[in-house]
Amino acid sequence: MLVRTRNPLNIGAAARAMSNFGSAHLRVVNPYELAFREARSAVGASAVMANAEQFDSVAEAVADCSLVIGTTAVRHRQLEHPLRRLEQCAPLIRRQLKAHRVALLFGSEKVGLSNQDLSHCHWLMRVPTREEHGSMNLGQAVAVCLYELVRDSKAARSSRKPAGATAGDAERITDLLLEVLALSGYLKPQSAAAAKERVRRMVRRLNLQAGDAELWLGMLRQMRWNMGREE
Amino acid sequence: MLVRTRNPLNIGAAARAMSNFGSAHLRVVNPYELAFREARSAVGASAVMANAEQFDSVAEAVADCSLVIGTTAVRHRQLEHPLRRLEQCAPLIRRQLKAHRVALLFGSEKVGLSNQDLSHCHWLMRVPTREEHGSMNLGQAVAVCLYELVRDSKAARSSRKPAGATAGDAERITDLLLEVLALSGYLKPQSAAAAKERVRRMVRRLNLQAGDAELWLGMLRQMRWNMGREE
Repeated sequence: MLVRTRNPLNIGAAARAMSNFGSAHLRVVNPYELAFREARSAVGASAVMANAEQFDSVAEAVADCSLVIGTTAVRHRQLEHPLRRLEQCAPLIRRQLKAHRVALLFGSEKVGLSNQDLSHCHWLMRVPTREEHGSMNLGQAVAVCLYELVRDSKAARSSRKPAGATAGDAERITDLLLEVLALSGYLKPQSAAAAKERVRRMVRRLNLQAGDAELWLGMLRQMRWNMGREE
Repeated sequence: MLVRTRNPLNIGAAARAMSNFGSAHLRVVNPYELAFREARSAVGASAVMANAEQFDSVAEAVADCSLVIGTTAVRHRQLEHPLRRLEQCAPLIRRQLKAHRVALLFGSEKVGLSNQDLSHCHWLMRVPTREEHGSMNLGQAVAVCLYELVRDSKAARSSRKPAGATAGDAERITDLLLEVLALSGYLKPQSAAAAKERVRRMVRRLNLQAGDAELWLGMLRQMRWNMGREE
């Protein structure tokens, strides 16, 4: 929900972030008339923009919502509301969204939400920006808040990897590489055993993928062929 | 790191998000000259913008970084890189950032990063947007990625990894390996360009540690010397 937004680019940017993250219901309260019209007619205005609803007051705009959250960049306002970080709010909002409507209010670019606007809010929420530069661009703030709502904390823990090369591949690569190194004169007889162990360990550290193992075997075979030719 | 950005508003927006979330080092690669100048002189351009560095190639821009991550909106590209969701990447990035430099690459507004740009990346990262509307506004994408990196910083774990090889090392290894492959006859002139890109990407996937990079350079130099000898 955008309250008294001035810049059509910001209305458009908010709509785009909503479309990116799957939030369909944009409501605007008292936008500068021209800004709203320009944003509507802008090229690339999404379905979100086409369905945007306009209201004359925050009260009317939030009337059917069971949780209303105001956003603010201020940390130490004389707060009459609980102020939570975005990360803390997200699970509460997601839970509420299962059965109810939740309104996220974003104020105007210059002054944010007024005390009058805040009186409709259950709590305040802030994005964890730096103390020295807390105020975000409106479109960016909307994007960050909506991202936090869709972000998957389980995904953060389970990072999938492509199929790794087998130990057999690693050993074949090690053998071929050692052969090539011997042919090239890199391996000196007196230190060969230590060097071989070093090379074997290094190949294991490479974290090779299955497809890359094939590539390495091909390259090394060609090198061996080339070096062996003149013997 | 912004590659071939066209719109000065987007460069400014990226700088603002960086300032909000405490990232100081903006690097721009081949921006449209006018866009970069306009963004620099824009009112409210922050310290981030004033310290922005300009480069002529991705290779130079990432040379001192030990982890290079490309951002993409595409889910099903013919991927030769591991593709991870932002949430999965963040803990890995935070860990790396304790001791090293990490580059996040954002491509141009119209076409994103090229295959050539991607060949410098260790992995790809995507913001979990809707399948039907995946592509984000550039400034919003930067804000969301940086937010994810600062969110919930208490959860950041402290397990240290050994120092990774820098992108400069990886490039030196790539060049030497390509030289050796050409000498050995592995690279055929008619398919050299595609093979080179394949090899460059493969080297990035190796996850090389700093000490191993030295080992590789030594081995490859010896192979080159041996193969060059008889010519």
